[in-house]
Amino acid sequence: MSDAAYTLGKIAARFALELRGDADRVIRGVATLATAGETQIGFLANPRYRAQLVDTRAAAVVLRAADADACHGACLIADDPYVAFARIAALFEREFAGQPGIHASALVASSATVAASASIGPFCAIEDDAVIGESVQIGPHCMIGRGCSVGAQSRLVARVTLVQDVTLGKRVLVHPGAVIGADGFGLAFARDHWIKVPQLGGVHIGDDCEIGANTTIDRGALGDTVLEEDVRLDNQIQIAHNVTIGAHTAIAGCAAVAGSARIGRYCLIGGGAGILGHLDIADRVTVTAMSLVTHSIREPGEYSSGTPIQPNRQWRRNAARFKHLDEIARRVGAFEKETKS
Amino acid sequence: MSDAAYTLGKIAARFALELRGDADRVIRGVATLATAGETQIGFLANPRYRAQLVDTRAAAVVLRAADADACHGACLIADDPYVAFARIAALFEREFAGQPGIHASALVASSATVAASASIGPFCAIEDDAVIGESVQIGPHCMIGRGCSVGAQSRLVARVTLVQDVTLGKRVLVHPGAVIGADGFGLAFARDHWIKVPQLGGVHIGDDCEIGANTTIDRGALGDTVLEEDVRLDNQIQIAHNVTIGAHTAIAGCAAVAGSARIGRYCLIGGGAGILGHLDIADRVTVTAMSLVTHSIREPGEYSSGTPIQPNRQWRRNAARFKHLDEIARRVGAFEKETKS
Amino acid sequence: MSDAAYTLGKIAARFALELRGDADRVIRGVATLATAGETQIGFLANPRYRAQLVDTRAAAVVLRAADADACHGACLIADDPYVAFARIAALFEREFAGQPGIHASALVASSATVAASASIGPFCAIEDDAVIGESVQIGPHCMIGRGCSVGAQSRLVARVTLVQDVTLGKRVLVHPGAVIGADGFGLAFARDHWIKVPQLGGVHIGDDCEIGANTTIDRGALGDTVLEEDVRLDNQIQIAHNVTIGAHTAIAGCAAVAGSARIGRYCLIGGGAGILGHLDIADRVTVTAMSLVTHSIREPGEYSSGTPIQPNRQWRRNAARFKHLDEIARRVGAFEKETKS
Repeated sequence: MSDAAYTLGKIAARFALELRGDADRVIRGVATLATAGETQIGFLANPRYRAQLVDTRAAAVVLRAADADACHGACLIADDPYVAFARIAALFEREFAGQPGIHASALVASSATVAASASIGPFCAIEDDAVIGESVQIGPHCMIGRGCSVGAQSRLVARVTLVQDVTLGKRVLVHPGAVIGADGFGLAFARDHWIKVPQLGGVHIGDDCEIGANTTIDRGALGDTVLEEDVRLDNQIQIAHNVTIGAHTAIAGCAAVAGSARIGRYCLIGGGAGILGHLDIADRVTVTAMSLVTHSIREPGEYSSGTPIQPNRQWRRNAARFKHLDEIARRVGAFEKETKS
Repeated sequence: MSDAAYTLGKIAARFALELRGDADRVIRGVATLATAGETQIGFLANPRYRAQLVDTRAAAVVLRAADADACHGACLIADDPYVAFARIAALFEREFAGQPGIHASALVASSATVAASASIGPFCAIEDDAVIGESVQIGPHCMIGRGCSVGAQSRLVARVTLVQDVTLGKRVLVHPGAVIGADGFGLAFARDHWIKVPQLGGVHIGDDCEIGANTTIDRGALGDTVLEEDVRLDNQIQIAHNVTIGAHTAIAGCAAVAGSARIGRYCLIGGGAGILGHLDIADRVTVTAMSLVTHSIREPGEYSSGTPIQPNRQWRRNAARFKHLDEIARRVGAFEKETKS
Repeated sequence: MSDAAYTLGKIAARFALELRGDADRVIRGVATLATAGETQIGFLANPRYRAQLVDTRAAAVVLRAADADACHGACLIADDPYVAFARIAALFEREFAGQPGIHASALVASSATVAASASIGPFCAIEDDAVIGESVQIGPHCMIGRGCSVGAQSRLVARVTLVQDVTLGKRVLVHPGAVIGADGFGLAFARDHWIKVPQLGGVHIGDDCEIGANTTIDRGALGDTVLEEDVRLDNQIQIAHNVTIGAHTAIAGCAAVAGSARIGRYCLIGGGAGILGHLDIADRVTVTAMSLVTHSIREPGEYSSGTPIQPNRQWRRNAARFKHLDEIARRVGAFEKETKS
């Protein structure tokens, strides 16, 4: 954390929270209830940690009004304690903004445009016709390929590769190892071998998106792969060519979306989930972890597939029966018929 | 797309397609039926888009003879419209071949061999005894480790790492973030801790293979990991040590193949599928997305595992019953027995 | 392999194995039973390869005493042949230790500390306050971010990114493409959009851990993500923020562990498996490939989920029935009730 310090009163005022306790108390950081020390703010968002209110040494706790009575020390009342805590925590984040300018080891093509306020780190390659906006931060080992543009205040932490025809909006955050704009997986089968289908589109990523480490987003075959604004992708996600993801959708690690699928707004896709190609997913759909979506989903709600974890010996017996489930069901049906007659 | 232009007549002649329409019409690109403009060629391969023939503004449509009557404008008749379209599209692909030569920032070991027609991009490290063939294109941030060789006309787009003892055939295309030739996951358990099993083999990749972004292919423990010719791997695939993949097999994103598995020729492995170690998969086997192959497959055909996606409330009830499926089946059996008696 | 040569007698003595055969026989490498030549040692650990003892041309075979009689040539008797073989194989591993020193193209911040015996490869960026220990080997294209430290004798093969506040113990081996210390996926939903929860913790990795290619380990939100000693991670694994993994646990490729999960010691997590957030997994738990752990596991043992692979036509019928499994079970229950009455 940073060396910042604020009084409780200042923090309450800044985020319009009701303070119960000493406004002059000095705060130097944030922590969990269990680990917070006397100059740190903790928070209670998940009721399962409510018992920790008793023993916490936190200088103050961010919590809902309903939980305030259970808190023996100072507290900050918030409608959504997790959101309030996130904002407070940001006060204590160390900021390491790179210096504006292009590192001596970086290579910038003469046809590229780099804003004077942007920072380009060591060993970066900025290729022809790339455009880097105001206050953009590009860490070490990044490549900004031909014709790519990076919107103002975006940050590519390190080792990000924008291959070709990629447009990032403003305030986009991309973590290391992400590859955006590689060829989609387009193949045509010509009697006895594959031929490559040229991938001629690009990738368009809206404002305020976040792209996780080692996530891959392919460029379109014809037309673009599109992420609308505020889409949040965790690590190691695969987004195939011509996918569209609606605004404010969040996808957890290792999920994969096949080509030309369209995901709505405000969706939550669980870790390791899969979505087949050419499907439509409505707004506000939740898909639980490791589920496979094999048909379009038209209604908001939560969807799942898979079977529950069990001790292997039990699971083996059940799984063996699954192979004959249709037959079992038929036998049940035959039985009912027989009995009725 | 490129600035190329061709007449319809030239295109028809080049790919031996029957043209119905004006041979002098000038074509400047390709597009989907829905988006094509007056100088672009569209295509109809998937019958679900047949209705779009009515409204398309495409200069010509590549389609099967059987669909030609439904097309009001010009058309190009093909046995396989998708293959023909792929070939036509390649005419309009922008080519950015690097200049032959070694970028000033690249490092090439004195014992390495680089063909004069090869292009080595910025920040590349070519290590001892590496061999780079004719007309090879190596983009920025690549490492070609000791003893690796890259066959003629291959292209490593950017940030590809060939760790050690990797041989790429001719015309191999590798996308950014791929790691080929890292140690396989070989461990022996020595009473209370792991010891590493040295990984002494290499990786051999045949001609015309394509390796997706952030895909990993480990080198063999003893002997090599092998991809025969024309194997096509999408992004984020994991190929463990000593796997063999037969020619013309295609694997979709996020699939994983465990050690020493042998996959046949002309297989199609779906996204997120898993294949356990030491298994044999016959030629022409299809495994659907996110299925897990736990035993060898001897017969061609399509194979699947998993359960269908459902609204979570329904799924929960069914999944809970799965935990007792063996017991349910026994009860059905007991019942039948009882009734018969 | 290397050019090393040892007599069988020397090898037997070095690893305290009983030798049956000619102590002066010269050994130049290791191989499988099927491929070993006359100067190579093979091994028999898996009984399914026992028949290969007959035809092997190996100079000697490492095997259990019980198998020695079936071996016509020389043999080395070991309690655990695979462990013994791993140790012997290490004799023949080529070692390519980088020269101590910092490559001319590498960039090292003035506030960083690099041991004189460490080797820093080309195009590395060592940032402020980083600490690189004795005999550390860092290959090309690595970034060691602010405040990271790398313990003695660790090796970062190539293109490894330690983002921020990462501590590696001694003898840690990290493969290319790994990203350690990127922001965890922390989001709070503020009415109609996401706000980022600052990720203020680090990553702590114990001695003797191995981290696979393209694996990602996020830093903690508050507090650290922790791998105890001798944890072994294969390729393309995702470890979310604030996860703890106990000593000697091994995780196979493409598995994913969600935030704040705690995995015990000596666990084995199969390839592609998923573990949801905030769960506890006891010591010595095995999770089979592609299983999803949705609740804490308190007892050692083997756990599974999923359904078996089947020909697609059969699978479809069974899967369709799964959607009505609760109803089928109810019908069976109703039946039993009816019959009893």
